[in-house]
Amino acid sequence: MQRYLPPGLTASEMDRALRAFAAVVGDEWVLATDTDRDTYLDHFAVDESAHAPAAAVAPFSAEEVSAIVKLANEFKVPLWPISRGKNFGYGGASPRLRGSVVLDLSRMKKIEFDIENGTALVEPGVGFYDLYDYIQEHKLPFWMSVPGNSWGSVVGNALDRGVGYTTYGDHTSRICGMEVVLPEGEIVRTGMGAMSNAPTWQAYRYGFGPAWDQMFVQSNYGIVTKMGMWLMPAPESMLGFEIEFDKADDLEWIIDVVGPLRREGIVQQAPSIGNWLRAAAVLTSRTEWYDKPGALPESVIDAIRKRFNIGWWGLSTRFYGPLDITEATSKVFERAFNGRSVMSMKRVRWEQGDPPELSAWAGVPITFPLQNASWHGGRGGHVGFSPVLPMNGRRALEQFHRTYDRYNEFGMDYHGSFALGERHITNVNQVLFNKDDKDMMKRVDGFFRALVNDANEKGYGEYRTHLDYMDLVANTYDFNDKALLRLNERVKNALDPNGILAPGKSGIWPTRYSGERHS
Amino acid sequence: MQRYLPPGLTASEMDRALRAFAAVVGDEWVLATDTDRDTYLDHFAVDESAHAPAAAVAPFSAEEVSAIVKLANEFKVPLWPISRGKNFGYGGASPRLRGSVVLDLSRMKKIEFDIENGTALVEPGVGFYDLYDYIQEHKLPFWMSVPGNSWGSVVGNALDRGVGYTTYGDHTSRICGMEVVLPEGEIVRTGMGAMSNAPTWQAYRYGFGPAWDQMFVQSNYGIVTKMGMWLMPAPESMLGFEIEFDKADDLEWIIDVVGPLRREGIVQQAPSIGNWLRAAAVLTSRTEWYDKPGALPESVIDAIRKRFNIGWWGLSTRFYGPLDITEATSKVFERAFNGRSVMSMKRVRWEQGDPPELSAWAGVPITFPLQNASWHGGRGGHVGFSPVLPMNGRRALEQFHRTYDRYNEFGMDYHGSFALGERHITNVNQVLFNKDDKDMMKRVDGFFRALVNDANEKGYGEYRTHLDYMDLVANTYDFNDKALLRLNERVKNALDPNGILAPGKSGIWPTRYSGERHS
Repeated sequence: MQRYLPPGLTASEMDRALRAFAAVVGDEWVLATDTDRDTYLDHFAVDESAHAPAAAVAPFSAEEVSAIVKLANEFKVPLWPISRGKNFGYGGASPRLRGSVVLDLSRMKKIEFDIENGTALVEPGVGFYDLYDYIQEHKLPFWMSVPGNSWGSVVGNALDRGVGYTTYGDHTSRICGMEVVLPEGEIVRTGMGAMSNAPTWQAYRYGFGPAWDQMFVQSNYGIVTKMGMWLMPAPESMLGFEIEFDKADDLEWIIDVVGPLRREGIVQQAPSIGNWLRAAAVLTSRTEWYDKPGALPESVIDAIRKRFNIGWWGLSTRFYGPLDITEATSKVFERAFNGRSVMSMKRVRWEQGDPPELSAWAGVPITFPLQNASWHGGRGGHVGFSPVLPMNGRRALEQFHRTYDRYNEFGMDYHGSFALGERHITNVNQVLFNKDDKDMMKRVDGFFRALVNDANEKGYGEYRTHLDYMDLVANTYDFNDKALLRLNERVKNALDPNGILAPGKSGIWPTRYSGERHS
Repeated sequence: MQRYLPPGLTASEMDRALRAFAAVVGDEWVLATDTDRDTYLDHFAVDESAHAPAAAVAPFSAEEVSAIVKLANEFKVPLWPISRGKNFGYGGASPRLRGSVVLDLSRMKKIEFDIENGTALVEPGVGFYDLYDYIQEHKLPFWMSVPGNSWGSVVGNALDRGVGYTTYGDHTSRICGMEVVLPEGEIVRTGMGAMSNAPTWQAYRYGFGPAWDQMFVQSNYGIVTKMGMWLMPAPESMLGFEIEFDKADDLEWIIDVVGPLRREGIVQQAPSIGNWLRAAAVLTSRTEWYDKPGALPESVIDAIRKRFNIGWWGLSTRFYGPLDITEATSKVFERAFNGRSVMSMKRVRWEQGDPPELSAWAGVPITFPLQNASWHGGRGGHVGFSPVLPMNGRRALEQFHRTYDRYNEFGMDYHGSFALGERHITNVNQVLFNKDDKDMMKRVDGFFRALVNDANEKGYGEYRTHLDYMDLVANTYDFNDKALLRLNERVKNALDPNGILAPGKSGIWPTRYSGERHS
């Protein structure tokens, strides 16, 4: 049995800690065999062992979480909390610091629903499917917003700033109130939850004084054990468009046409512009078309597009609400495309009374986009590169060309999308790979670093990144000698003097483990 | 000359500090005469001397702010930063802790505007009128959102969670990126601003890792020297309704009709329901109608309403955007009132090409609501009581009756409004008084405490409050032995070990001054 231990801790010290954890959660919820540990590896990672945990412990309640956190302080054991650990492409269930103990919260699955206000108070183990089942079972007139791979946790997704498809798709902005176990075990509630029995905990997000919710997002300041989440009232109608575009360079004008509609609040969800491979990777696989290494040649791309009748780019958008309003919105949207040449522009229409649409547009959990990991054949995987751009067609097109050239240079197939926020673009690039292709795998790290550097030169930073690159990306946020990172670490040390909670998350290292930082 | 000094500091120590400040800003920007100090008093306060400052210092740049903060640490002088200090009813320019030095940022008036994205980067001295003038001068196609009394600072208002009238009226939620001087003088930039030269500083609000912006709101963790703010693209049209309602108890059904429209995102600004006095206090004054103490009798209320043809409640709402959409929205809104009996329902309509509407609905700064302070005659003033309620008609009506009974019990004229957020109600009550009426002034404190206690019993907390009541209100946020307040103070002490920055703000006291807490 190969053991992994955190720096400075012996096997016997770890064993004592695990026994103490077992006294809290029961023996069956301390998971420390080889098989257990394998479960928590990041199987999409280039080097799985880089983030191997020592073991996992799975509490059932905030009180158990608090008890374990107190023991972790006593035994100086770093904990890596996961909700369900399904954020593949960014690290899955595995910890930033090798030898950490995974604090697996997936047993915590309670749901409280406020039917009048359309808000849920959920624990971190609640998956999108769980919440969907709950809503169906209770026939609640609310729609979820789900991410493309919906097998993960509602809480975990929002805490990593994951996104979905509806007008509630910026999940982190729909968080309202939390219960959090702090790094020394204290339980706090944020916003109006700081008032005992406030009926507004899930209704008003700021409370009195500084508002903490976004400080527990992408950070290591606390373990969220309950999170308030807003849900969209089931709309009277959902109208929209599916548009295909023929040329790569169309990207510029697409953004300059749709961006203003988004900024003006006419389009209220984030339209996503994806390239042909985003569509094709779930319809076919590369081996059907080509068997040589390197990026696919244009002729093959053309053949694939022709077979499936897809554009170089495709754009999807939806409008939700009373039919009077969604029809008016459709009219305004269509008008903006007057005089523009598109490959195809399909109207989409759903009204209350129609059979339910089982798609992510209607907030129904899906997993089929996971198939893209099989694009190359072999043991597939991917890593996501996600810089934030200004909402500007020319800049987006330039960033696309820069990125596309890098994909070609490193012999990878470009898989990119541009999701339009209110005033920014999230440019999500998937680096799809085959872990059985050793030559390809050797190129991944250099490729990723080139992408980060290219973006950084233009002032574009990633909004989230894989465990492997958290320090690299944190270092790009360099204003005034990394003043914000130093502020983050000052607060980290104040709240977590023993440095036990998720050391290294988002590049934030407590003093105890500051030697583990690398880039 | 009556001097006010902070606890533990002698007059000569203060004088030395002021001389050191003068070396940074120049002698003319250290303001320490009696007249100067009077300028910074809260003239609406029941006891103005309770919050008298020692002096004021007015820096011109973030670098000067940083230099003063470093000196304040050296001399252990508490600073109270103000943007323009115009938030009357909550404390104006005066500090929570008597003898603090007001750090007056009103000289910092730089504006940078991103015309493509409709975002402004403003310094704290920029008033709503300044920004309005800038937009007019440069003919920018963007509308501001202004508060009812628009003489204050754009930054200061957002940092106190002030609100306006348009779809951008929840000002704090339109903050995007800050530059902040920390309590020991370090300058940080938040969000994407943490990356040097990021063009997305004002475009994407979260950045990488924990998001700080809301931590600098209503707190004493830093001095905001630049703030990103989103502005609404000038709409093609603005349609809406002005509705009057005859009976006090109509409040319940009004909220149950309009609340769902707000929750569904059909109404995108916060409709505000105000009582007859909110309308009448800027049209007339009490002495024209009645000369006895105690709350106005119903007969007089009826006479005033009759003269001005106003309801017991009035509701205003507006829809912004392309005419196709605002007309559809108007139709949906009107339909929701089918079968409901209202006193009057007036349509409002403005289109591009019409003469500009010079109202807060169109983001034009106004000050006429300030007149309400003159309601009683004499030296007028008011204090705001602002609990957050769930979006529920019955609960709102009950809260109204509870509050109205207290106004009557304490012999005050009820001045209340209910602004509908997406899922909560902000219930702003103005306690209008005449500072020359000694008998009335004696009742204010007991009255205010009764209001806070009444609300607290129902689990309703205030979202902001006057300096006098910050500890009282902070104490109502009591979950787990005030765990959130203790967390706030832990971070306070970590960032501000000398406790120099705005001690006591929002009830957050650094260790140095913890003896000053009272309730």
